Amino acid sequence: MENHPNSKSRTTYPKFYDQDTRWLDNDAYGHVNNVAYYSFFDTAVNKYLIDHCGLNVGVSQAVGYVVSSSCNYHSSAAYPADLEVGLRVNKIGNKSVEYGVAVFKKDSKQALATGHFTHVYVDRSCGKSIPIPQEVIDGLQALITD
Amino acid sequence: MENHPNSKSRTTYPKFYDQDTRWLDNDAYGHVNNVAYYSFFDTAVNKYLIDHCGLNVGVSQAVGYVVSSSCNYHSSAAYPADLEVGLRVNKIGNKSVEYGVAVFKKDSKQALATGHFTHVYVDRSCGKSIPIPQEVIDGLQALITD
Amino acid sequence: MENHPNSKSRTTYPKFYDQDTRWLDNDAYGHVNNVAYYSFFDTAVNKYLIDHCGLNVGVSQAVGYVVSSSCNYHSSAAYPADLEVGLRVNKIGNKSVEYGVAVFKKDSKQALATGHFTHVYVDRSCGKSIPIPQEVIDGLQALITD
Amino acid sequence: MENHPNSKSRTTYPKFYDQDTRWLDNDAYGHVNNVAYYSFFDTAVNKYLIDHCGLNVGVSQAVGYVVSSSCNYHSSAAYPADLEVGLRVNKIGNKSVEYGVAVFKKDSKQALATGHFTHVYVDRSCGKSIPIPQEVIDGLQALITD
Repeated sequence: MENHPNSKSRTTYPKFYDQDTRWLDNDAYGHVNNVAYYSFFDTAVNKYLIDHCGLNVGVSQAVGYVVSSSCNYHSSAAYPADLEVGLRVNKIGNKSVEYGVAVFKKDSKQALATGHFTHVYVDRSCGKSIPIPQEVIDGLQALITD
Repeated sequence: MENHPNSKSRTTYPKFYDQDTRWLDNDAYGHVNNVAYYSFFDTAVNKYLIDHCGLNVGVSQAVGYVVSSSCNYHSSAAYPADLEVGLRVNKIGNKSVEYGVAVFKKDSKQALATGHFTHVYVDRSCGKSIPIPQEVIDGLQALITD
Repeated sequence: MENHPNSKSRTTYPKFYDQDTRWLDNDAYGHVNNVAYYSFFDTAVNKYLIDHCGLNVGVSQAVGYVVSSSCNYHSSAAYPADLEVGLRVNKIGNKSVEYGVAVFKKDSKQALATGHFTHVYVDRSCGKSIPIPQEVIDGLQALITD
Repeated sequence: MENHPNSKSRTTYPKFYDQDTRWLDNDAYGHVNNVAYYSFFDTAVNKYLIDHCGLNVGVSQAVGYVVSSSCNYHSSAAYPADLEVGLRVNKIGNKSVEYGVAVFKKDSKQALATGHFTHVYVDRSCGKSIPIPQEVIDGLQALITD
């Protein structure tokens, strides 16, 4: 069963984004640092929200705040690697959505890192949690697999 | 029982490090970004390893590579907040050690973020996993609570 | 004459801020990366503006946008060094202010890096340049040396 | 005369690299932060050195350390912009090379940021300055314009 959370298989992610690496991603051990992967996750999720769910970063009142994230590191990468981030929705509730995220080397079938990334929707003006906007729910359908 | 993983209580962390925030830690929503917390974890764990476990970043052959990490975000912070990172050992095995990590505002009893951070020890010259050096095991004793 | 731009002398900077280093500041060559110094500059300047010039990052309409910066690197540092950032005003005009900035090791008289950092004031709602607010001008007086 | 340092014209840069932006590049003002541009410069220069000048980051003994950099910011960008970094050699000496660097929006003729980035070559094992290796000099010829 490849479809569980933290699946390494490329086929379980409906959407991919190219992800450059930067000189400063490499740490003193010469590999892309563990921290950088979370930046990749944040970048991919928000790109999807902007392109498919109506997010306007400077304007939208209903936005996702991260309440939980994790990553398992299976193998390493190093700048100047060209990477890809795989994205899917693991589960979606009334006020929160958990993304499944994974980082692949180009043309690699198995992820080098897998994780999750959970947004709770809040009213940005007061920080209170709110239901996920319908436009977001609609846009996320393409990321739901089963 | 406050001593479980992800404890928010300050009293369950034996060691603390001051942690500055930076202008760029704040993201477009005006809060310290979720990614920055992992940088705080990495910084605190390695500081402890350097100060108490004999780690010499440029020289040591036995070093810890991160294989797993996670964070739960309970409330937000924003630059120019002065933070602290709490550190403890959740469990230690033959080749790996899981740290419990938490971020506090100064003088706050409850963590605003809690997580874990797991190192596997490797021989840096070949990347193969190896037993945790005795000097590291000895140095980590002060972080073990029960 | 020690008071020129890029002065390395600690005595030419009226204000200092402590600056932590982070594990990820070190790059693949094992030193604090050149990029990190600019983050130190940004952090120190905005801290001063918040503490002494009335800047409220989420609210203020008149804010400084960086139009120019530079850094000369005289010697290196490496995490976990404790650093300090020296700050002064090199010149102040109607709409812009140039800061002199320098990074020191604790207790070192000579800077390991020196540079400048220039803000132009803009109306954040439209991006048009505007005169520096009087509260900022007043607050910056303590950074002017001659 | 478009060929001077800090030229904004796309035609004065012989080499370009695509440059992704990341969520965390945007700061609290909603624009790609000034610091991020220096990361773009570092990334482009080292990519060129790896691809055309024989740099092997983990192995090469003769490497470039940054001794000076600067940037002028002409207009702003914001994640998720797709950018490009233009690269050329402004001047090359016995032990150092100054690159001209510029950041463009895709399909834009005028740079939104321009700067310089100077490497001094050092023997990595001792930190002493050394002549630029011939392989580097040869590889950089394609970046020299006049």
